Amino acid sequence: MRHGGDTQTFKNIYGHDFIDFSSNINPLGIPEEVISELEDSIPLLNKYPDIQYRDLKKELAKYLNCSKENVLVGNGVMELIDTVISMYHKILLVHPSFVEYEERAKVHDLLVDHIILKDNFQLNSGKDILERIEENQLVLLGNPNNPTGYRIDRFLLINIYKKVKEKKGLLVLDEAFFEFGTNEYDSIDLFSNDLSHLIILRAATKFFALPGIRLGYGVTNLELKNKIEERLLPWSVNTLAMKAGMILPKLGEYRARSQEYFLNERKRLYSALNEIKELEYYFSEANYILMRLKNKKASECLDFMAKNGILIRTCENFRGLDDRFIRVAIRNKEENDQLLEKLKEFLKG
Amino acid sequence: MRHGGDTQTFKNIYGHDFIDFSSNINPLGIPEEVISELEDSIPLLNKYPDIQYRDLKKELAKYLNCSKENVLVGNGVMELIDTVISMYHKILLVHPSFVEYEERAKVHDLLVDHIILKDNFQLNSGKDILERIEENQLVLLGNPNNPTGYRIDRFLLINIYKKVKEKKGLLVLDEAFFEFGTNEYDSIDLFSNDLSHLIILRAATKFFALPGIRLGYGVTNLELKNKIEERLLPWSVNTLAMKAGMILPKLGEYRARSQEYFLNERKRLYSALNEIKELEYYFSEANYILMRLKNKKASECLDFMAKNGILIRTCENFRGLDDRFIRVAIRNKEENDQLLEKLKEFLKG
Repeated sequence: MRHGGDTQTFKNIYGHDFIDFSSNINPLGIPEEVISELEDSIPLLNKYPDIQYRDLKKELAKYLNCSKENVLVGNGVMELIDTVISMYHKILLVHPSFVEYEERAKVHDLLVDHIILKDNFQLNSGKDILERIEENQLVLLGNPNNPTGYRIDRFLLINIYKKVKEKKGLLVLDEAFFEFGTNEYDSIDLFSNDLSHLIILRAATKFFALPGIRLGYGVTNLELKNKIEERLLPWSVNTLAMKAGMILPKLGEYRARSQEYFLNERKRLYSALNEIKELEYYFSEANYILMRLKNKKASECLDFMAKNGILIRTCENFRGLDDRFIRVAIRNKEENDQLLEKLKEFLKG
Repeated sequence: MRHGGDTQTFKNIYGHDFIDFSSNINPLGIPEEVISELEDSIPLLNKYPDIQYRDLKKELAKYLNCSKENVLVGNGVMELIDTVISMYHKILLVHPSFVEYEERAKVHDLLVDHIILKDNFQLNSGKDILERIEENQLVLLGNPNNPTGYRIDRFLLINIYKKVKEKKGLLVLDEAFFEFGTNEYDSIDLFSNDLSHLIILRAATKFFALPGIRLGYGVTNLELKNKIEERLLPWSVNTLAMKAGMILPKLGEYRARSQEYFLNERKRLYSALNEIKELEYYFSEANYILMRLKNKKASECLDFMAKNGILIRTCENFRGLDDRFIRVAIRNKEENDQLLEKLKEFLKG
């Protein structure tokens, strides 16, 4: 499968609905405050959203704890990633990572350099990547990374940034899953004094359970922000996405509740997964877990689970992974238990 | 001004709200059926929209009276125009026309050939354009055109298409304002047998009063459709735009009511404008009217009207126009009368 979340295709094949573990959305659901804000905003759809998104940027700056002058907005993180990619000639990708990075690089005819991580899928000391960064290159990293769930070590990240800066390139951090983690550091704080060769991208999509609304945002230096905005389509963020984004600073309670849930639920799931000898898993700072099936194929697992009403993400189209890997979202406890039960049944079968 | 509809900028300057004649939205408002559909759809925002937009394309095909295999969807018409432009090296533009055409051609480094229409701003016999069409060129025409409101003559359009086809180029018809017109022909019917060098683009934005929702769609041949879809961002149409688009075939009553309103209201306004000797106007097939002030500047008109709570569109940034031209949307009768009254006051002042 190219992406998770394509329940309609599987419904056409299997003839029934699914509990969707293939897309990574916060199971706590859309915050109440957002739902009532959106209901109130429907009449506003008969006007264009502010073409400069002034109020949205002001509120996002509060939420992100940065200056509103440094904030960019887009139709999902993908529009921002795509626009940045379209401005460069060379890109360095570290795999496995979100498949759209490479797709968009192809669309814009970039020269792509690939680092394919082995074994633990971690950058470790960073020797590999630090030696590979070239002049004027775009270096695009997921943080936490999809599908591994790994966050880049703070000191390594600083070193990568120094190298990118020395080479006059641009470091792009895709932090669409940022809020799910324990976050020993916040990249926006960490680089608040120097955004000269950096753009940090985040989204309302996953954490606030709004994949249908399409809102991504980024923090970067003024010069790059202006260049990107010259290339972005006018009004690319719709009015409801704008309205939802404007109340993010008020969602502290939802945020705390979600973070506590994921901290505990990841631990609970790791304990349960430790008992399943037929698979390995990778420690995640996000709301999904990558697993390697030791003796079975992911495609068979997908079929077995789908017959049982559960949709998982196989990972054969992630560079560096193969038909042994699956990625599953963390959903509510009851659903997660159902997943574990069926997974055991499949692996022992 | 770069675009109409930027009420926030003018509010910051003048300190009050406006009746907005600068953006061209159906004054009959969002159809009731759409409002209730959107209210019901808010809970669905916690899922990704169908990445293939299967149901949306099926319903749009019904609405457009074409095959669903030929339907494309995008985040407003602009995403589709931009993507098509990004696939070509040369473009022919006929001015005055929507300023974003040239902007997007610049973003993607196209060689731009300009035809600047004089006097009546019409293509007339088409001699100019037919002689200028080159090999492998993209020819992008508004139909009706913004800001003139002119629709291309049916026989000229067929001749332009033949020439583009002979030259192996692509004709792009931006028909975002299609439904407002009397429509002596429907381009989708007209070219139903041969879409090989053609893409026809339309939108829910203007006619269904939904500029905040971002939904554009197009009809073209299978090969080009697939190529464009390879370049479009995944999930670029948000869930609410998708849901609104799915009920367009059911909005026949709203459509008929709107068309009757505009037919009559344009006539009424032309009669009133005939009485104002200080301006000329151009006959429109859309929901806006271009006017030329004989003895006054558009910038002064903008200021006078803005002080009186009315926002109009000056046209100095349309190639081929200057500081004598204004474009005003057709709103409800009472508002239109207010506009006329203030316009007279300004012109006679």
